[in-house]
Amino acid sequence: MIFSLFYEKRGRIVRVRKRKGAEEYIAENPDWVVLTPDEWRGRWHERFGNDHPIHIEVGSGKGRFITEMAKAHPEINYIGIDIQLSVISYALDKVLEANVPNVQLLRVDGSDLTNYFAENEVDLLYLNFSDPWHKKRHEKRRLTYKSFLATFETILVPHGEIHFKTDNQGLFEYSLMSFSQYGMKLQQVWLDLHTSNYEGNIMTEYEEKFSSKGQRIYRVEARF
Amino acid sequence: MIFSLFYEKRGRIVRVRKRKGAEEYIAENPDWVVLTPDEWRGRWHERFGNDHPIHIEVGSGKGRFITEMAKAHPEINYIGIDIQLSVISYALDKVLEANVPNVQLLRVDGSDLTNYFAENEVDLLYLNFSDPWHKKRHEKRRLTYKSFLATFETILVPHGEIHFKTDNQGLFEYSLMSFSQYGMKLQQVWLDLHTSNYEGNIMTEYEEKFSSKGQRIYRVEARF
Ligand SMILES: C[S@@+](CC[C@H](N)C(=O)[O-])C[C@H]1O[C@@H](n2cnc3c(N)ncnc32)[C@H](O)[C@@H]1O
Ligand SMILES: C[S@@+](CC[C@H](N)C(=O)[O-])C[C@H]1O[C@@H](n2cnc3c(N)ncnc32)[C@H](O)[C@@H]1O
Repeated sequence: MIFSLFYEKRGRIVRVRKRKGAEEYIAENPDWVVLTPDEWRGRWHERFGNDHPIHIEVGSGKGRFITEMAKAHPEINYIGIDIQLSVISYALDKVLEANVPNVQLLRVDGSDLTNYFAENEVDLLYLNFSDPWHKKRHEKRRLTYKSFLATFETILVPHGEIHFKTDNQGLFEYSLMSFSQYGMKLQQVWLDLHTSNYEGNIMTEYEEKFSSKGQRIYRVEARF
Repeated sequence: MIFSLFYEKRGRIVRVRKRKGAEEYIAENPDWVVLTPDEWRGRWHERFGNDHPIHIEVGSGKGRFITEMAKAHPEINYIGIDIQLSVISYALDKVLEANVPNVQLLRVDGSDLTNYFAENEVDLLYLNFSDPWHKKRHEKRRLTYKSFLATFETILVPHGEIHFKTDNQGLFEYSLMSFSQYGMKLQQVWLDLHTSNYEGNIMTEYEEKFSSKGQRIYRVEARF
């Protein structure tokens, strides 16, 4: 799978830097990182040991958002999903430190989520600062491309929502169109999140980095 | 009709300043300003003397956009519509100077357009820098409010489009949601028109004023 070996940085495709010992570290923490994800398809509530809603973040990176959300909302179960092993290992640092029961990490490709979640099993899906893949010929790799939306729709509850934020103007323009063309409704749009009256925002690693450089943050809530 | 006596400026409602002699000036130019608009309902092609598509701008202000569009696209018939008599009289200055056969002015309220256009009679509708009416209790006055969209849908061809631009962030956020909630599809979105590769942009009076102050210009094409 090419996505697991390369990623995009400022429009260039770069090789993923491995974290030494990441694999062993993850293998030693099966309570926090789901090692056999297909076994949990349709059984996530069992894994969490309660009936709370399940919110997932696809492309969760180093995990600050999902961990802080879990701390702030104990009544919700969170799953941070990323395709990169090293990145999941950094998220594990944060999850271990937080030590709350309502967050799990999953290292899989977002395009395969129907293998790991049953229909309607997910209540809400977050996308934060997804890779822009700005070249037209890479459109299919964008997490807001229609094939991803079809996957997300399948695992989400009926009329489920995607909450997406990014600093990337081109990706945001594209995503508004893609959601709309797919038939989703825009419930709420923020063209400058940090100057708005939106409450309870939890910054991601990328959000902190780009907003400190003066970049605007865009946000949208779209509903199937 | 309250809209004809007051308008909104920077969030405040101000009385319209009258242009002296505007009424007479308009009455003297019935070839350019449509004085009996209900008579032309369903007969606009007759008035233009051809079968070219009809594009209208609602809230056309002092008329630069509609006049320049008419000069640039002789194969299209344009109608500039505004509720304010004085403003129409300034647009008339430009129309007379341009002296092209494919532009007309109409002084009516955008909410009444079904009285002046038959179903499917309009091919495209422009909204440029519409009054923001930023207070929630004035939502119904915004030209992108659902009741206006219903009116526009009626007079537009099936799957007709609205092309909207503004510098006003709040109105743009609202309009994206309103179009989407109404069931329209966003065909294209520009979050910074003047730095984009959009070609053939014709600046309106407000666009020139606000962009010269460093304001971003937003644009969207939405389809019923
Ligand atoms: C630009 S980073 C953003 C990380 C984090 N959300 C933030 O805002 O700081 C994008 C992340 O998405 C992950 N990613 C990209 N494509 C993915 C896919 N198909 N499935 C799962 N994760 C993916 C990358 O590995 C990377 O960690
Ligand atoms: C802010 S100005 C913009 C004028 C011009 N489009 C521009 O960009 O320079 C808004 C215009 O919309 C007109 N307007 C407001 N409400 C209207 C309505 N309900 N029907 C028709 N015109 C309206 C006002 O009279 C005003 O001329």
